[in-house]
Amino acid sequence: MVDLGTLASGVNTIWILTVSFLIFFMQPGFAMLEAGQVRAKNVANVLMKNLMDWGMGVLVYFLVGLGIAGLAGGLTSPGSYDLASAFSYIGDPTQWVDWLFSAVFAMTAATIVSGAVAERIKFKAYVIYSIALTAIIYPVIQGFAWGGGLLSADGFLGMALGVGYQDFAGATVVHMLGGLAGLVGAWMVGPRRGRFDGTGTSRPIPGHSLTFTVLGTFILAFGWYGFNVGTQATVLAAENGQLAFNAAVLGRVALNTTLGMGAGAVAAALTTAYTKGKPDPLFTANGLLAGLVAVTGAVPHVTWYGGLVLGILAGIQTPLVYHFVVNRLKIDDVCGVFAVHGSAGALGTWLIPVFAVSGFSAMQLVAQTVGIVTIAVWTVVSTWIVFTLADVTVGLRVDREAESTGLDRIEHGYTAYPEFVDRSSDGQSSPEPAGDNPPADD
Amino acid sequence: MVDLGTLASGVNTIWILTVSFLIFFMQPGFAMLEAGQVRAKNVANVLMKNLMDWGMGVLVYFLVGLGIAGLAGGLTSPGSYDLASAFSYIGDPTQWVDWLFSAVFAMTAATIVSGAVAERIKFKAYVIYSIALTAIIYPVIQGFAWGGGLLSADGFLGMALGVGYQDFAGATVVHMLGGLAGLVGAWMVGPRRGRFDGTGTSRPIPGHSLTFTVLGTFILAFGWYGFNVGTQATVLAAENGQLAFNAAVLGRVALNTTLGMGAGAVAAALTTAYTKGKPDPLFTANGLLAGLVAVTGAVPHVTWYGGLVLGILAGIQTPLVYHFVVNRLKIDDVCGVFAVHGSAGALGTWLIPVFAVSGFSAMQLVAQTVGIVTIAVWTVVSTWIVFTLADVTVGLRVDREAESTGLDRIEHGYTAYPEFVDRSSDGQSSPEPAGDNPPADD
Amino acid sequence: MVDLGTLASGVNTIWILTVSFLIFFMQPGFAMLEAGQVRAKNVANVLMKNLMDWGMGVLVYFLVGLGIAGLAGGLTSPGSYDLASAFSYIGDPTQWVDWLFSAVFAMTAATIVSGAVAERIKFKAYVIYSIALTAIIYPVIQGFAWGGGLLSADGFLGMALGVGYQDFAGATVVHMLGGLAGLVGAWMVGPRRGRFDGTGTSRPIPGHSLTFTVLGTFILAFGWYGFNVGTQATVLAAENGQLAFNAAVLGRVALNTTLGMGAGAVAAALTTAYTKGKPDPLFTANGLLAGLVAVTGAVPHVTWYGGLVLGILAGIQTPLVYHFVVNRLKIDDVCGVFAVHGSAGALGTWLIPVFAVSGFSAMQLVAQTVGIVTIAVWTVVSTWIVFTLADVTVGLRVDREAESTGLDRIEHGYTAYPEFVDRSSDGQSSPEPAGDNPPADD
Repeated sequence: MVDLGTLASGVNTIWILTVSFLIFFMQPGFAMLEAGQVRAKNVANVLMKNLMDWGMGVLVYFLVGLGIAGLAGGLTSPGSYDLASAFSYIGDPTQWVDWLFSAVFAMTAATIVSGAVAERIKFKAYVIYSIALTAIIYPVIQGFAWGGGLLSADGFLGMALGVGYQDFAGATVVHMLGGLAGLVGAWMVGPRRGRFDGTGTSRPIPGHSLTFTVLGTFILAFGWYGFNVGTQATVLAAENGQLAFNAAVLGRVALNTTLGMGAGAVAAALTTAYTKGKPDPLFTANGLLAGLVAVTGAVPHVTWYGGLVLGILAGIQTPLVYHFVVNRLKIDDVCGVFAVHGSAGALGTWLIPVFAVSGFSAMQLVAQTVGIVTIAVWTVVSTWIVFTLADVTVGLRVDREAESTGLDRIEHGYTAYPEFVDRSSDGQSSPEPAGDNPPADD
Repeated sequence: MVDLGTLASGVNTIWILTVSFLIFFMQPGFAMLEAGQVRAKNVANVLMKNLMDWGMGVLVYFLVGLGIAGLAGGLTSPGSYDLASAFSYIGDPTQWVDWLFSAVFAMTAATIVSGAVAERIKFKAYVIYSIALTAIIYPVIQGFAWGGGLLSADGFLGMALGVGYQDFAGATVVHMLGGLAGLVGAWMVGPRRGRFDGTGTSRPIPGHSLTFTVLGTFILAFGWYGFNVGTQATVLAAENGQLAFNAAVLGRVALNTTLGMGAGAVAAALTTAYTKGKPDPLFTANGLLAGLVAVTGAVPHVTWYGGLVLGILAGIQTPLVYHFVVNRLKIDDVCGVFAVHGSAGALGTWLIPVFAVSGFSAMQLVAQTVGIVTIAVWTVVSTWIVFTLADVTVGLRVDREAESTGLDRIEHGYTAYPEFVDRSSDGQSSPEPAGDNPPADD
Repeated sequence: MVDLGTLASGVNTIWILTVSFLIFFMQPGFAMLEAGQVRAKNVANVLMKNLMDWGMGVLVYFLVGLGIAGLAGGLTSPGSYDLASAFSYIGDPTQWVDWLFSAVFAMTAATIVSGAVAERIKFKAYVIYSIALTAIIYPVIQGFAWGGGLLSADGFLGMALGVGYQDFAGATVVHMLGGLAGLVGAWMVGPRRGRFDGTGTSRPIPGHSLTFTVLGTFILAFGWYGFNVGTQATVLAAENGQLAFNAAVLGRVALNTTLGMGAGAVAAALTTAYTKGKPDPLFTANGLLAGLVAVTGAVPHVTWYGGLVLGILAGIQTPLVYHFVVNRLKIDDVCGVFAVHGSAGALGTWLIPVFAVSGFSAMQLVAQTVGIVTIAVWTVVSTWIVFTLADVTVGLRVDREAESTGLDRIEHGYTAYPEFVDRSSDGQSSPEPAGDNPPADD
């Protein structure tokens, strides 16, 4: 006699652990993606931010974050607020696999921001923001959208509209939040020196290694399979004394994830080939990621051609939105995180009802609009508050000389490539004898 | 009461998804392997090819490729041709996990070719070839060998010989095909400028980063566990009302994969230590991969010492065949893909009957010979046709100046390492001020 | 009717294979971690060592290693010595998945050592040591601790104390052994030229790429989830006609692994911010790894705050112990493997009884002390013997000129970055025209 619950729990837990590890692996994906897009003199700094996003983040998210998500879910869900149960996971080992699965999503949101504000934000200011995001900013949205709160079918939105907000794996909950936070951060901290000339015309500041950036892109895509397909956490279900397995849902999330990224890459390549005359590898990589973001909320809900179209739209908009942010808004979003994670996430999630397997639903489109606006408003306001607090306490931005020398030397005492970095990208010669470059001894 | 079919499907699907993700991860493996073996001025171009192999490839393989495989299987399988069923997967979500599992194999074949023709092929010509490989060249062989077609036990070969062609996970179907296509491509596009001097003597053109190459090697080995062990897709089988699990088969594929790569690495290291006086890291990495290729078709069929011997032979032949291709055939196969994927795949698959667990079978050796020759002829002819078509339409090769400047600047408008690449490997000084190097803005 | 044994075997085997692949992936983690911490002129050499650790290692561990572990377990376990059964796995495919799971642990121990002795040890001497470690040094400890031998609950220690040595996933069996062997090796081979000046004051020799080092760190953390969580190999158990699944144990290992690494990273960052005035990215990465090492033996045994405290202690001690090794012991442990793997592993394993879920046990603390001392003594003595034998046969250390030129050119005939490495870190100009740098042709 097999206990079906035990069987399903065992099998599903293997799956959840496996995909949680994959999603964790998005951390070096972001680290490489971002490191490649900054100048050699700021690489150690961006790597350090990525290390701290994860290291600090998991502590904060265990001690505070997931509990806040529970409270946020309860607060905006009629009659279910319960402080004790919100934090009950801390003492209950049987909930810790699920905690890990939640944590890797939270840390993905955190790590997106560092790409936008790279090369000039103070390390301390960044750490403050990263803690706030992990402790409060993300958990509140997690509770609203997935924790039975405000935006869910069981919460206010469901009561008002009869349907809840749809964002399967976090196109907006994770990615738009991160991309929008990055945009606000990049705006508040201001552009890098030399990014715009005296007349406000943008001057490109290319990153030091496209190879690391493309490596990071592929690592992210690998981890994203965990992110999207893994969100279908229940592979085997024990229902009414029967074991159930839904091959169609898993097939749909796997296919739409794949078509979304493929279409995003191709569309971005073709768009740049058209606008610039040459297909652009960096935008192709970013288009692949934007395609992934766009389908992340939609994968089980939309048809395969829906997944394809979302990927195409995401790929096309990547260079266009990036161009708009830089040349119109004059915001120096170093890694283009708004175009890749922000606008692509909003677009893909908003269009779910248009491509829905279940057919178009106007009410669902209203729900999507309400959800996206809610998440956007919360993200912008809370990010603005936290960066303002950081500004008045530790200061947001390194000084002129530190930016010129590079954050690595100033914030951490050495550079990432002591044998190669002997001139700054500003054209100023700054030879660094190896003996003057102590990474470890003292 | 447990439904055994549901149980087995659920468990096996988790496994197939997990290994499909691993096999997808071979994409950055190839990207890093190849990027490291080209000069810095051509890195962005080879990364772009790898991005497009995957991005374009999945779209083509979903809309066309797998259906062609079905047709190819049916066409050469007595009485089973069926157009509608060949393309039925497009509308059936329950087949999409299996589609992904097929797609990651197809894209592995595609991405091998870019390593052979790097540093001088036109980007457009490469994209044309990549589409043809994904749409037709690979799917036809897939149908022949695995889709019940020409070479399978149920097809012509089985009818004629009583046995089908054995290639478990694609040593020839994927790797020899890719390696041979690369060789033909490298021959047709001609050697890089400076690869051979006026007298036809070869001059090495070393790649820019052995670190990326070794990273790529290890990533490939990691994904290869999915490739080989994962091809045993049915872990739990529901047979005659019983649940069956074959520990010996999984053990054999896991062990032979491991011994094959270990033996390939050691044998290549010792061979170069003997022929060159010093153990060569690049050939050791390539020997590890050749060992993997050699056992890929054989893993469940051969004894452990068979796996060991196949790995040793693959490792020994890697530097020897590479030397033959360069110095005798005068073909400039940049990453040595023929030695690693082509000859190693053919050798390992051909020798399966010699080391078979079930004992030697002369008829099986005939089947292996027929299969290898069939795949080789198809690959060479179809590749020749497609490259010829590309030549007469968009042209195969960049011009002299573009090759000297580097494909990155000419084809994509910037280089991968703007802070470091200030001289070409040809010794010509070509300083690149950062401001003249716009990756993204326009 | 489901056979529970078959069901559990199938599901558990999928898990064991998945985590074995993850643990294998620690090989490129170590390769990148170490490559980044050496100078550009010695990168090919350290990559080659990592390739050989794995390639040679798996052959040795299949033909000899695991059998020696069986003998070592039997020799020190009352009445269970059996030569035939110790080597029975060689002929039994059903044991080969378990062999692979054992092998990836053994090779992790092997690959740690190369980071300590980098940049001056002879390649042949290193290969001799690597073979000895894989064939004997590690297997003996494996048998002692996990194979029912000396230190286990069923062996001498269990008979004497009533409890066995606790080291869940190898904090000491794998990591302390590797870290201590590295320390002994680094001491015997002597410091790199220029590491200490005439007065014995240390002069830092920074590695060539922090990016590769941080990439390696994250890859290791990813694989470590397999290492720690995967050691709970039995997810589904078939017991007394019931299927059992222990969610709490899996949750505990997953959480403690995560908190340990997070705490280690944060603690190391804060420690260096305090001692050096600036948070150090390299030590933060090493602290993350040290946190992982510290909890590796403890994950299922300790409370969550135990995991947190072990991580904090491991992070704090990383820079302090590194400083002690360099500046007091005057040992040039290039990658700080003793601080990361040695002392952190000993500390974390020794403190298990203090934070035990089951409450403090003085007897367990005695068992831990005996176990750690036993492993340490065996490691130091056996390593000393093997390095001495290597010294008197092939010699331990390259000559002065080779060290100055770089091991890559001398031992392997070319460098890892032919376009970039045109001066040694010693400040001596040594231009390398590309044509003089043949990686492959001959």
